[in-house]
Amino acid sequence: MKVSQTFIPTLREVPTDAQVTSHRLMFRAGLLRRLGNGLFAYLPLGLRAFRKVEQIVREEMNAIGSLEIKPTVVIPGELWKESGRWEGMGEALLKFKNRTNADFVISPTAEEAFTAIVRDELSSYRQLPLSLYQINTKYRDEVRPRYGVMRGREFIMKDAYSFHANDESLDKTYQDMGRAYRQIFRRCGLTVIPVKADSGAMGGSGSEEFMVESEIGDNTLILCKSCDYAANVEKAECKLDFSPRFSAELARGAAASTPPVEKIDTPNVKTIEELCAFLKTDAKTFIKTLIYKAVNVETEKGMLPEKFFAVCIRGDLDINEVKLAAALKAAEAGLASEADVERLTGAPLGFAGPVGLAKELPVIADFSVTAINDGVSGALAKDLHYKHIAYGRDFEAALTADLRTVKAGDRCPLCSGELYEKKGNELGHIFKLGFKYSKSMNVSYLDENGKSHIPTMGCYGIGLDRSLASVIEEHHDDDGIIWPITVAPYHVIIVPIKYDGPVKEAADKLCSELERSGIEVLLDDREERPGVKFKDADLIGIPYRVVIGDKNLGENPKAEVKRRTEKESRLVDLAKAAAELTEKIRAELAS
Amino acid sequence: MKVSQTFIPTLREVPTDAQVTSHRLMFRAGLLRRLGNGLFAYLPLGLRAFRKVEQIVREEMNAIGSLEIKPTVVIPGELWKESGRWEGMGEALLKFKNRTNADFVISPTAEEAFTAIVRDELSSYRQLPLSLYQINTKYRDEVRPRYGVMRGREFIMKDAYSFHANDESLDKTYQDMGRAYRQIFRRCGLTVIPVKADSGAMGGSGSEEFMVESEIGDNTLILCKSCDYAANVEKAECKLDFSPRFSAELARGAAASTPPVEKIDTPNVKTIEELCAFLKTDAKTFIKTLIYKAVNVETEKGMLPEKFFAVCIRGDLDINEVKLAAALKAAEAGLASEADVERLTGAPLGFAGPVGLAKELPVIADFSVTAINDGVSGALAKDLHYKHIAYGRDFEAALTADLRTVKAGDRCPLCSGELYEKKGNELGHIFKLGFKYSKSMNVSYLDENGKSHIPTMGCYGIGLDRSLASVIEEHHDDDGIIWPITVAPYHVIIVPIKYDGPVKEAADKLCSELERSGIEVLLDDREERPGVKFKDADLIGIPYRVVIGDKNLGENPKAEVKRRTEKESRLVDLAKAAAELTEKIRAELAS
Repeated sequence: MKVSQTFIPTLREVPTDAQVTSHRLMFRAGLLRRLGNGLFAYLPLGLRAFRKVEQIVREEMNAIGSLEIKPTVVIPGELWKESGRWEGMGEALLKFKNRTNADFVISPTAEEAFTAIVRDELSSYRQLPLSLYQINTKYRDEVRPRYGVMRGREFIMKDAYSFHANDESLDKTYQDMGRAYRQIFRRCGLTVIPVKADSGAMGGSGSEEFMVESEIGDNTLILCKSCDYAANVEKAECKLDFSPRFSAELARGAAASTPPVEKIDTPNVKTIEELCAFLKTDAKTFIKTLIYKAVNVETEKGMLPEKFFAVCIRGDLDINEVKLAAALKAAEAGLASEADVERLTGAPLGFAGPVGLAKELPVIADFSVTAINDGVSGALAKDLHYKHIAYGRDFEAALTADLRTVKAGDRCPLCSGELYEKKGNELGHIFKLGFKYSKSMNVSYLDENGKSHIPTMGCYGIGLDRSLASVIEEHHDDDGIIWPITVAPYHVIIVPIKYDGPVKEAADKLCSELERSGIEVLLDDREERPGVKFKDADLIGIPYRVVIGDKNLGENPKAEVKRRTEKESRLVDLAKAAAELTEKIRAELAS
Repeated sequence: MKVSQTFIPTLREVPTDAQVTSHRLMFRAGLLRRLGNGLFAYLPLGLRAFRKVEQIVREEMNAIGSLEIKPTVVIPGELWKESGRWEGMGEALLKFKNRTNADFVISPTAEEAFTAIVRDELSSYRQLPLSLYQINTKYRDEVRPRYGVMRGREFIMKDAYSFHANDESLDKTYQDMGRAYRQIFRRCGLTVIPVKADSGAMGGSGSEEFMVESEIGDNTLILCKSCDYAANVEKAECKLDFSPRFSAELARGAAASTPPVEKIDTPNVKTIEELCAFLKTDAKTFIKTLIYKAVNVETEKGMLPEKFFAVCIRGDLDINEVKLAAALKAAEAGLASEADVERLTGAPLGFAGPVGLAKELPVIADFSVTAINDGVSGALAKDLHYKHIAYGRDFEAALTADLRTVKAGDRCPLCSGELYEKKGNELGHIFKLGFKYSKSMNVSYLDENGKSHIPTMGCYGIGLDRSLASVIEEHHDDDGIIWPITVAPYHVIIVPIKYDGPVKEAADKLCSELERSGIEVLLDDREERPGVKFKDADLIGIPYRVVIGDKNLGENPKAEVKRRTEKESRLVDLAKAAAELTEKIRAELAS
């Protein structure tokens, strides 16, 4: 392809709104243009790279027997009402009514559509397992889209959904997907951190996120310096620096020698720090108590739209709201308003404590609290605290759980090594869904004996745009992109010093030789100074650059060949250049 | 691919809501399932066929130098406001507001997006011509979607847009597109009727529709029995059976011997037929006068939201509203309400005529009226008509134009042959847009002398889903689909009589031999009776069927090979079957 015949509007200037490298380079290299806030058009060069990523994803999905289908992007709202996500998904779900007043969503994900398709066709266990995927447009109504296609509103996702008769079958597909994902990212040249977030409960549930390190990542990863433990902070655990007492009775026993609870005046003491100074004690003796509002709480009596809890944790630790919501079986948990706190505790903000609370406000305790048998906490009245509080003796929790936010410096739950933090961006996610959709949407099949069962499900997503942008984040230098050959829009760029006479002939010949052997070539036939062409070649990052100029076209004609990663080029016999490049590129592509 | 490892839910029953063959067969063959009204999911087999059509389209677009890009499906409403189509497009345009209250559309077509992209990058004449396309999701909010993907709400369209410095350049791309379209439809096995709808005015405008004959077509085509004249009835012309008088003066002269206008009582006469009987005359002497309301009329003084006209045509002819709207430079033209007619003509419905009308109601006349120099028409009062009306003498038209609806039996405008009608479905459309979008959206470039110009544009669409459905409409029999090899989801289906022992070995071997040479094979490994497998093979329409059974696996093993189109199979040496099939299929694919 000649540069003059394609459309690669490179820019010297850095777009002002582009805050991250990939966004800047995708614009400067003419891969992408903006259509609106969070809406981008891929131009020819960008689309070629995008399609390479897409094809790698497709090949690896097909290789593990997942079957490609294509549902619509616009999905009837009815299906989302069946699954319960019509209301539960939050505002990022774009809903609309059409002219006939029917409800629709623009798919941000497609559990409902795939479940509906399978529901209508599934009858026998012989049809299981079934793994289906699509590579299709998605829309998330981000309030503040940013970082180019890294967090856009419209994007392309590969999403797969699998259906199984039993956990072993789900686990096999889940493992296959995990391997396929590693293969996909490896082939794209991406270094991912697979983050297991397996709750371990029931043996059935499981989830793994594939992260890339990124300063603009919206995930915090907790990693171990000594082993390969990696977790999203939302789910990270750590080695405990205390010995939890899971039964209240045991805790009560440990408090045998603790003096009785004593009320103390603490005038003008507001923070835990001030209280520690005032009492000359350590934050670790403090029982921090926060009032939380949980939304859509599953209880034995059905779903409660909201419920309040007093959540306790050791004074030096922080509550992890994702863990809390999971422990409460709630859709979400967040701090209650000041008014709610005053109403529920009878005291101003800052004096909540677990002792003497009304029954309507159950105590939820982090395991750390169960180890406190002589602690301090608010006394449910202004400027008053209790000391000598013992868990099990002076109060009990309705539920104890791991609720702490793990931090850098905590110890690894696997090897006791030191944990550290990284910012990460999620590129992919594999997840054992279980019966959530198959149950709510009434999917069933008959087993060998004609008995009806509900299939268990998994779901598996990869963001293609974000993966492509991450390739650029990982592979670039000050001059531009450095494409891995597998996703490069072209393999070779031929730069004739001046596209004329014998140089033109030599360039055209090399171009057609390479193209005949399946190598993708860009030929810079523009009437520009060599410096401009070299700068553009570096910017758009084509893996191999071949310069052809008069001075090397003597008796023994040569071309200057340079990898994008190399500083210096080498002279190669022009007659052998096509064969040599073809061989190298084929080998790299196959590896 | 083994049938047991894919997902082809064939049906014996015909879906009740499927009214057309392609819809029925796409469901029965397991290509498609319904997600909602006008929303369909392609299952694996359907998607494979769909991708073949897509790839043919892509190859032919690339071959003429059009460049693929990928804008978003969701487009900011701002761009549509700039072009004027935010209001002008009608209710099939799906508009929505997102959570930040910004306006968006789901693309039904992408003139705005492409024009915006080019506007921002175009500076010099050296960048022109530029031809860009996408193959992407579209949405039209059809009130009554039907016929499966033939008229769905969401669909995939290839839409291309080209930008040019002059008409010659636009014409070249337009011609290239026309050739590419013919090539695309030929490769898909589709017989299309290219319908030219060139207005011929100004030499610049032009349009060609690619139709397939279809009983459910929403277009009426006018075709000539003697030559290749083909036109959409909306624009069809015919040879005139009268001699029009373009100047009123000339018409006046022709009326020299016509008696003066005379008012006649016509009690209880309502239809033209009754009037002809009453006056013992022919409908051809009647000047049929209808009051039309035109919407968004371009005038010298700017755009009028609505304007009324008295439209006259010879009594035996009918007004073509598309021609009328074009002649009036209006967005639309439709019959005025009864109340409007009474208010404007001062007479009840049925007594309008061109003589004596108020100036506010200009007369628009079909050319046929200019040839009437002794005609009859309503006298603007109940039960009264005028006779002896002569055009030019008794009234003049503000505008004369070709407004008639051409019908079967009319004569060809090219060769005078007899015209006939067919119902057709539009699969593609190429169109010279001119400056409509480049002007309203302020696109410009500088010429050699640094002078600013507006580029002229063309647009070119193909509906992919509809094309695929049309392939099935054209290629099927009572047993199922008969895929042309170019778009067949698989080239060969191997049917082992019983997938076991030596039969299994032979089937597996043939399958892998064929796959190694790039042939796409489906292997029916199911434990079903041969009759069931044969029926399914016919239903899904794979071009070559190879049956392998015990009885032919003697000393000189054979396979039964049959084309889907053939009644009888032939015995082929099993050892040579792969080579023979590969050779045939490659030749067919290359032709």
